[in-house]
Amino acid sequence: MSEVHVARRSRLRADSASAGGTALVVTRPANVRYLVGAAPAGSVLLVGHAGDDVLLTHWDPATDQEEVVSRTAESGGLRTAVLDDDTDPAVAAAGLAAEAGAESVAVEEHHLTVARHRALTATVPGPRYTDLGFAVERQRLVKDEDEIAALRVAAEITDRALGELLESILVGRTERHLALELERRLIDHGADGPAFRTSVATGSHSGLAGHRPTDRRVEEGDFLTVCLGARFRGYRCQIGRTFVIGTSPADWQIELYEVVFAAQRAAREALAPGAECRAVDAAARQVLAAAGHGRALGPLTGRGVGLEIGEDPRLSPAAMGRLGACVPVTVEPGVHLPGRGGVRIDDTLVVRPPADGGPELLTITTKELLAL
Amino acid sequence: MSEVHVARRSRLRADSASAGGTALVVTRPANVRYLVGAAPAGSVLLVGHAGDDVLLTHWDPATDQEEVVSRTAESGGLRTAVLDDDTDPAVAAAGLAAEAGAESVAVEEHHLTVARHRALTATVPGPRYTDLGFAVERQRLVKDEDEIAALRVAAEITDRALGELLESILVGRTERHLALELERRLIDHGADGPAFRTSVATGSHSGLAGHRPTDRRVEEGDFLTVCLGARFRGYRCQIGRTFVIGTSPADWQIELYEVVFAAQRAAREALAPGAECRAVDAAARQVLAAAGHGRALGPLTGRGVGLEIGEDPRLSPAAMGRLGACVPVTVEPGVHLPGRGGVRIDDTLVVRPPADGGPELLTITTKELLAL
Repeated sequence: MSEVHVARRSRLRADSASAGGTALVVTRPANVRYLVGAAPAGSVLLVGHAGDDVLLTHWDPATDQEEVVSRTAESGGLRTAVLDDDTDPAVAAAGLAAEAGAESVAVEEHHLTVARHRALTATVPGPRYTDLGFAVERQRLVKDEDEIAALRVAAEITDRALGELLESILVGRTERHLALELERRLIDHGADGPAFRTSVATGSHSGLAGHRPTDRRVEEGDFLTVCLGARFRGYRCQIGRTFVIGTSPADWQIELYEVVFAAQRAAREALAPGAECRAVDAAARQVLAAAGHGRALGPLTGRGVGLEIGEDPRLSPAAMGRLGACVPVTVEPGVHLPGRGGVRIDDTLVVRPPADGGPELLTITTKELLAL
Repeated sequence: MSEVHVARRSRLRADSASAGGTALVVTRPANVRYLVGAAPAGSVLLVGHAGDDVLLTHWDPATDQEEVVSRTAESGGLRTAVLDDDTDPAVAAAGLAAEAGAESVAVEEHHLTVARHRALTATVPGPRYTDLGFAVERQRLVKDEDEIAALRVAAEITDRALGELLESILVGRTERHLALELERRLIDHGADGPAFRTSVATGSHSGLAGHRPTDRRVEEGDFLTVCLGARFRGYRCQIGRTFVIGTSPADWQIELYEVVFAAQRAAREALAPGAECRAVDAAARQVLAAAGHGRALGPLTGRGVGLEIGEDPRLSPAAMGRLGACVPVTVEPGVHLPGRGGVRIDDTLVVRPPADGGPELLTITTKELLAL
């Protein structure tokens, strides 16, 4: 992996510092991890203008620092500096850049706080400070095959955890317990941890995006919505499914499920390199609107995933831009009827050209309406 | 609770806006929660210069917005404004303040990013922008009896979850599974969730602060360190204990345990209103140094707890300031011997004057060296 990270930093340097003499100070954790392969808490990456990269970190007893140091040291052209507790690694990074003669230092102004930025410019007043902006995030948008392989494993783990839950008895158990059990199963199957807080929603809670599990128990006749994902080597996927508890779904449940399923399929089928992000969103939204649920959908039909849940792109009515190949996204429409419940169906897919078989579905748990 | 929050906002207004004409924009989530009683994701509190307070929030399907609105609406003098997805609540708050004639707007520069601050001043250029600094954090330092009651419940839940674990068979189980089981038990006993990531460390990992659970299994003869805490009504406590697995601890284990226990007791006994924070730290550090472990301790002997783990005060060699009554802190020294393992003993206590019986121990699980 080390060559991968060297190449990523070279590309960032080439894209961001074309004027020369600009050092880059990367503070956002997912960005540090992308460029180095590890991101100890609070660590900061200096991408030097002359290829002299340094990872600056506090001694963190929670990570095996020796491992980080050796892992990053082998990562070609990267030094690691362990700082005492009172030094802000970003200040130390700017100091090193100034010593090395950098004329300007680009920082992530969307991540640095005002107070920290002021401390930086006051303590290391030499260089000119500019905004690195979302340069690393832009680079993270299109995934390489190693990243997609990690997402694929994350999805396999997630499908397995969900599959096991479906074989167990659900009636009478609380949302909280089902969520904890799913997280335990994710770890059993090799996840680093959950990709995000597992959501389990039953009865009138079903169909709500991001519902926080409560002590409500699963009852006969409920819709049950689960939304979970594994984190594997830092990469995060997402699946959401809605089931019916008991033997025979009610008519309104079948109808609602079919509408959300049709909306989700329409958005999935709209995924293609070159497709407008808002056209994918519109594909789902139109199906829901035609069925009278035009206002039920939240601001997003889906979003990018990778080292974070909720990266770019956004599949929303106001989204600008088009999809590229090898961009993983979720498609996650839902409808919630207040007081009754609702349906969400979420998948993680990778955008692929039609010649390669179209969008690659990573989360393969069935989307039939199962009665459990 | 609503009067409590009104009083907190009045006090903040009195402390921070004595010049008059200054509106306060509070963005840090724990600070919003402290002043309102709820903090939907991304919400921002405007504390108006004329007593016109507004909670600005995005529609968040993950929280029951109606509940938030009604809970905050009843909270005397507080309006709630739900914004569309594209509006930064901080910008909207500054806009309201400007409309209401505020001459200046104080923001939390230690929380707002440079990019967000720039958007604020560009979109609402009228008022002068100043730094609110840590005004809310300072107010949060000394807890009222309701807050301490919530911490007490959190500690009871934590003790109970830990006590149950000690009755189960531990040998052969992995750190990850023990951590998950502890978190499940916290929720069983009424916690909102864990206060922080539960740490379970066995064998050579034992005694490490913040160790992330791995697949290592508990073995006979191991030290086993667990560190956990419940979150109850937003308040977070912390307990850490170290046990020996098997019937007879080795001599080195008994010796090391006694040293850490003596250091922890010395720091606990040094807690008193008016005591210097660094004197409490020194009390633990001197005991460890006398036993030849002077360099084993990390930067902190303990720290404040409340709505966050790791609030002020810090009990460290460089800490300025003195303790006050009704300030809850952890005392959490540890020694880790590389390759062998170590001991940590963490408690949560409330500083009380000697006349009230001295420091109040919230986490009451025994600190005898148990062989499990």
